[in-house]
Amino acid sequence: MRASDLPIGIFDSGIGGLTVVRQIRRALPHEDLVYLGDTARVPYGTKSPGTVVRFACEDTQFLLDQKVKAVVVACNTASAWALPTLDRRFEAVPIFGVIAPGARAALARTRNRRIGVIATLATVRSQAYAKALLARDDCIDLVMRDCPLLVPLVEEGWTSGPITESVLRQYLAPLLAHGIDTLVLGCTHYPLLREAIATVAGAGVALVDSAESCAEYVAEGLRQMGLLTVDRKRAGRIQPFVTDDPRWFDELAGVFLGEPADPSSQATLPIIELK
Amino acid sequence: MRASDLPIGIFDSGIGGLTVVRQIRRALPHEDLVYLGDTARVPYGTKSPGTVVRFACEDTQFLLDQKVKAVVVACNTASAWALPTLDRRFEAVPIFGVIAPGARAALARTRNRRIGVIATLATVRSQAYAKALLARDDCIDLVMRDCPLLVPLVEEGWTSGPITESVLRQYLAPLLAHGIDTLVLGCTHYPLLREAIATVAGAGVALVDSAESCAEYVAEGLRQMGLLTVDRKRAGRIQPFVTDDPRWFDELAGVFLGEPADPSSQATLPIIELK
Repeated sequence: MRASDLPIGIFDSGIGGLTVVRQIRRALPHEDLVYLGDTARVPYGTKSPGTVVRFACEDTQFLLDQKVKAVVVACNTASAWALPTLDRRFEAVPIFGVIAPGARAALARTRNRRIGVIATLATVRSQAYAKALLARDDCIDLVMRDCPLLVPLVEEGWTSGPITESVLRQYLAPLLAHGIDTLVLGCTHYPLLREAIATVAGAGVALVDSAESCAEYVAEGLRQMGLLTVDRKRAGRIQPFVTDDPRWFDELAGVFLGEPADPSSQATLPIIELK
Repeated sequence: MRASDLPIGIFDSGIGGLTVVRQIRRALPHEDLVYLGDTARVPYGTKSPGTVVRFACEDTQFLLDQKVKAVVVACNTASAWALPTLDRRFEAVPIFGVIAPGARAALARTRNRRIGVIATLATVRSQAYAKALLARDDCIDLVMRDCPLLVPLVEEGWTSGPITESVLRQYLAPLLAHGIDTLVLGCTHYPLLREAIATVAGAGVALVDSAESCAEYVAEGLRQMGLLTVDRKRAGRIQPFVTDDPRWFDELAGVFLGEPADPSSQATLPIIELK
């Protein structure tokens, strides 16, 4: 089998990365995808760098064992902390994260160069968005805020309504007071809150969906490397794996994916000890 | 060393179990305690029964490896799903959960026999409180509700204020409409929301803190088994272990514990494969 006909591997701490899968499906409908959600250890966004790097290595090794041609880290926290280690450790395939494309899209949108980023605590602490933005434009004025309640709100299904808007108003107040014109949704759960965020942020703030920009970035990268499948007629399939009980995942997957998903299988991850 | 002089082992999915440690310290100030928080895999309350049982076995084995005289499962979710397996698998020491004492305390408080329980999704699905209550009094009218946002609210530090009260009003509305006179706080994080819960529930509803009732139950059980330390002059120590980075835990531990905690050490858990 040609490398270009192999599937693309995508992992996330849990279910949120399916928003990235959804965008990749839209950009690359002919590709097969293998998705791994580490639902037994979710979330990553509240955990320490060392633990997140170890988990990300185990997730990547699992995907490589499934014979994928590329790995997409569909999790902002894992992208923020683990990408350099993954690049070093797994040289055989290209590895794409969500942070660089999100930063690039934000720079393309902003007019006043005041950019806000909302993300998990771990992503904020990593300063990964700051590095990615400032490497490209050192006049960017960046305000970041961790928003620990947003993932639970999405998982509770409270994606709109007065409570969600109150929480968003509290989180976004300092960013809006700073006059941002662009806001990066720096966690793969947040696109499901897009409407509520737009309501609170107002029409003057452009929203950058890191899932959407990541999909474009992956499509562009694989095209340049000659790694897209040649058969342009076939419909790609999604093969989902999870580390917790597949049934719990299957109940929610369709909401994130925007299409019915095949039933997932339970994955046993390799154990990697980092020195 | 006499068995009665060994420490008591206590585990939780993360930091919430320190509310149980706090109550055990109050009830048994002379005892040494070994605490394990599985902070790398927290939370358990959103995970499946099979995964929770496996994690609980690994946590218990770790504590036994530290030579403890008893194990307290300071986590409602793990108590709900894993206690029968733990009892069978680890016969050498007594194992105490939080559900039975919470149920017993609720029965002692209720007058109208309408009891509410708020807990994680996993605890609610387990029906463990229903079984524990109905085994003692089959005329109990029980209303349960899972409250996924409460743990994140506590961890965000939003233990009071209008958002927290709105969330609580939404969660408690069906229980209050049912006319409960007793409400079990069926998750070790919830005691930190006690004041806000009391405000929303009103003076007519008695709150049962499962941490408090668990501590009394453990003290009583160990006394009956002759497993309390004989030396009534010494001040017990707490030795904390966590599976994620100790620093992240140490920052928050004091809030839950109500006293300064010794720095924690990182634990590597044994791997147990359940058939």
